[in-house]
Amino acid sequence: MKKAVYPGSFDPVTYGHIDVIKRSAEIFDELIVAVVDNKMKTPLFSVEERVKMLEEVVKDYPNVRLDSFSGLFTDYTKANNIHVSVRGLRAITDFEYELQIAQTNKILSDGQLETMFLTTSLQYSYLSSSAVREIAMYNGDLSKCVPDFVKENLDRKFGRL
Amino acid sequence: MKKAVYPGSFDPVTYGHIDVIKRSAEIFDELIVAVVDNKMKTPLFSVEERVKMLEEVVKDYPNVRLDSFSGLFTDYTKANNIHVSVRGLRAITDFEYELQIAQTNKILSDGQLETMFLTTSLQYSYLSSSAVREIAMYNGDLSKCVPDFVKENLDRKFGRL
Amino acid sequence: MKKAVYPGSFDPVTYGHIDVIKRSAEIFDELIVAVVDNKMKTPLFSVEERVKMLEEVVKDYPNVRLDSFSGLFTDYTKANNIHVSVRGLRAITDFEYELQIAQTNKILSDGQLETMFLTTSLQYSYLSSSAVREIAMYNGDLSKCVPDFVKENLDRKFGRL
Amino acid sequence: MKKAVYPGSFDPVTYGHIDVIKRSAEIFDELIVAVVDNKMKTPLFSVEERVKMLEEVVKDYPNVRLDSFSGLFTDYTKANNIHVSVRGLRAITDFEYELQIAQTNKILSDGQLETMFLTTSLQYSYLSSSAVREIAMYNGDLSKCVPDFVKENLDRKFGRL
Amino acid sequence: MKKAVYPGSFDPVTYGHIDVIKRSAEIFDELIVAVVDNKMKTPLFSVEERVKMLEEVVKDYPNVRLDSFSGLFTDYTKANNIHVSVRGLRAITDFEYELQIAQTNKILSDGQLETMFLTTSLQYSYLSSSAVREIAMYNGDLSKCVPDFVKENLDRKFGRL
Amino acid sequence: MKKAVYPGSFDPVTYGHIDVIKRSAEIFDELIVAVVDNKMKTPLFSVEERVKMLEEVVKDYPNVRLDSFSGLFTDYTKANNIHVSVRGLRAITDFEYELQIAQTNKILSDGQLETMFLTTSLQYSYLSSSAVREIAMYNGDLSKCVPDFVKENLDRKFGRL
Repeated sequence: MKKAVYPGSFDPVTYGHIDVIKRSAEIFDELIVAVVDNKMKTPLFSVEERVKMLEEVVKDYPNVRLDSFSGLFTDYTKANNIHVSVRGLRAITDFEYELQIAQTNKILSDGQLETMFLTTSLQYSYLSSSAVREIAMYNGDLSKCVPDFVKENLDRKFGRL
Repeated sequence: MKKAVYPGSFDPVTYGHIDVIKRSAEIFDELIVAVVDNKMKTPLFSVEERVKMLEEVVKDYPNVRLDSFSGLFTDYTKANNIHVSVRGLRAITDFEYELQIAQTNKILSDGQLETMFLTTSLQYSYLSSSAVREIAMYNGDLSKCVPDFVKENLDRKFGRL
Repeated sequence: MKKAVYPGSFDPVTYGHIDVIKRSAEIFDELIVAVVDNKMKTPLFSVEERVKMLEEVVKDYPNVRLDSFSGLFTDYTKANNIHVSVRGLRAITDFEYELQIAQTNKILSDGQLETMFLTTSLQYSYLSSSAVREIAMYNGDLSKCVPDFVKENLDRKFGRL
Repeated sequence: MKKAVYPGSFDPVTYGHIDVIKRSAEIFDELIVAVVDNKMKTPLFSVEERVKMLEEVVKDYPNVRLDSFSGLFTDYTKANNIHVSVRGLRAITDFEYELQIAQTNKILSDGQLETMFLTTSLQYSYLSSSAVREIAMYNGDLSKCVPDFVKENLDRKFGRL
Repeated sequence: MKKAVYPGSFDPVTYGHIDVIKRSAEIFDELIVAVVDNKMKTPLFSVEERVKMLEEVVKDYPNVRLDSFSGLFTDYTKANNIHVSVRGLRAITDFEYELQIAQTNKILSDGQLETMFLTTSLQYSYLSSSAVREIAMYNGDLSKCVPDFVKENLDRKFGRL
Repeated sequence: MKKAVYPGSFDPVTYGHIDVIKRSAEIFDELIVAVVDNKMKTPLFSVEERVKMLEEVVKDYPNVRLDSFSGLFTDYTKANNIHVSVRGLRAITDFEYELQIAQTNKILSDGQLETMFLTTSLQYSYLSSSAVREIAMYNGDLSKCVPDFVKENLDRKFGRL
């Protein structure tokens, strides 16, 4: 029974993340989507709000479940007996950053945590949560970036609903 | 009548920007240099100060005019019926960032906004406004980075004039 | 009257090239698509065959015309009084190579030749003529890569028609 | 039952490849190591010799089996009902090339072939089969690059055994 | 008598820095390790604390001495008659950033300051002071990242000693 | 007494190489410029011709001497008791390739060979021997690329003298 974790901020979840979730769910028997609760950052959405939006996303995938964690990612994977992490790669600058994290995690986990990369589908390679937040701030068209219910959450956040 | 816009922070304008302005003015019939008024950032110079410095720069180019905008760039270009944006590329990390913005803008504009890239001239490839601001703070030699009147504005900002 | 040249091997022309031609034709008053006749390489299609396929592509664009050249590109642009070259960028490795050529051409032309870059549309970013030739050799599906008449030319080349 | 394929030239297999095989065998239920028989290239070792060396490598992994193929990789995966391909990434230039191939394969397979990437372990990131071949030609020390039995095959190839 | 400077934040010093110090000390007759006192940043350790940790590191290298500076690096090197700066390169994104700084320093020093790069040893390529600080915050295993006395300083900083 | 080697094909030597030689000669007590005699490649100029052109270049630098070698570079440096190799970096793609070679050489030399990198001066960053050979073939202007006596050697090679 092969399980994997897909960690991320998901602030908010985008079509790019959904694409990675869908494809990873087909490769692994069990996929845990884990929301990072980073005490050092000020997210737009709380961990609870981010998990709730993801629930809407993963409800159709029986082998995907949600979780959240704070602290070291390798402490989380060790405690949950997870040995594979999945990450999406959009571009070169992503790659270098992800590579460094993957190597650090391998060392922190004594070689027990493997990171596998999926390349983001072509049509979502421009997408990032930070771009989504900036477009939402100015009420730009997000129909090609996030599902409608995420758009509504963003509108509410920026006082338009 | 082909017109293009060259958007940027220009905080302050450098010889690198001036090089892009000069070369773009030769390619397009009309060039608009548009100062971004980003409410999320704290610039060294106000939009008005940045526009005023640019006025000094573009006064010799009859087909270049100045403007400023806040909000989404694609809202600005739509409102002004502009279909080409010009950006200077210094290096790889620039390229990835600019590529992502170009693709986002293409999607936000329904394919109506095209981004064209010029590579920065060799002798200005090391230049950035943030490097200029840091050098100015320590009163370093800026003679190869910005025109004299920009140097004066920086000296005034840092209390040396 | 702003004119530009789009030089390339076009061996054969792909949907990626066609995308650049279409978008450049909207930006410039006149666009010359120039097939490079590189005596050092052994192309799959002759210059004549490549020009003929391009004729089919550009027939609907009244401001685009075809040409071919051998020797130094800067000798060609000088002889034809062309001051802007257009190139498509797919990725980082493209960028470095193109940047080096753009700088060499600027120096060889005494600053008279400017290179402008368009980024390839997302859906064609994976496409290259060499990939098309390899897929054609094994009779793979090229319907998303090249127009039907190019597919026919490839089938004929590989003895399938 | 999740199966994956790890395609490559393996000319010859290095400790870098072995590292990817070992780690992939832990992630997937079944792993097929598939030697590419590229008719356009002149390898140092024949497909048979490369498969034979790999046999020595995989004999201790019960869920790994060997195969070889010529023609389009996506024809091979379709015929064998394989939906995941594994590739090792050493560096940025690898990444761009692999990304382009992954996207091409996704399109050629109508979205049926997924590519997952593992980053090469730190201590093997400098290794490539072409470097191994060049070092072997000059009889350099290969003890940190390939297993002894591969070293012997190289010595024989270069007439030293 | 060739002397060189190795400038950095060293907040805190890692095995990666120590590797660069050790290797540079073998190449140059005299090496100055210079701690940057950047007034714009809020470091975890004060300049004094950082210098003290480095003292422990360099005590066995007779041709290495410590220093600190604020202001422009090129003002520091001019005042100390230093003509070579040493920097470690871990990855591509490092390279672009370092390249831009090297070129700026060359211009600010009128060509009197040369920058030489060493590539970080394989086993330390994942290491950065910021990763160390983050791992320390969560009390992760730092035994492969920093010497014991640095670990103690980090524990004290985060209230665990 | 610190000595270093600058290995390369120098086919032919360009202003970019000369810039690296000049700057390295100021950093090291003794610099050996070593022409690689690669039996696998077909150079434009023979090793003897390349050394002769370099003699003209280095005659004004008393601490620089010429040499040539075939076989493994690390065998050459071991035989000559050299512990530092110098390489010029023009761009990212250079960097990755050079990094891989530097790491391979470190391993092949049991950590006895250190590679240091200089970044190419801005005005020569577009220059490569292969570009020079192609421009020379078409009799383009090489005055900003190579010294006059190299231009004459190229003219003779291409039958123009």
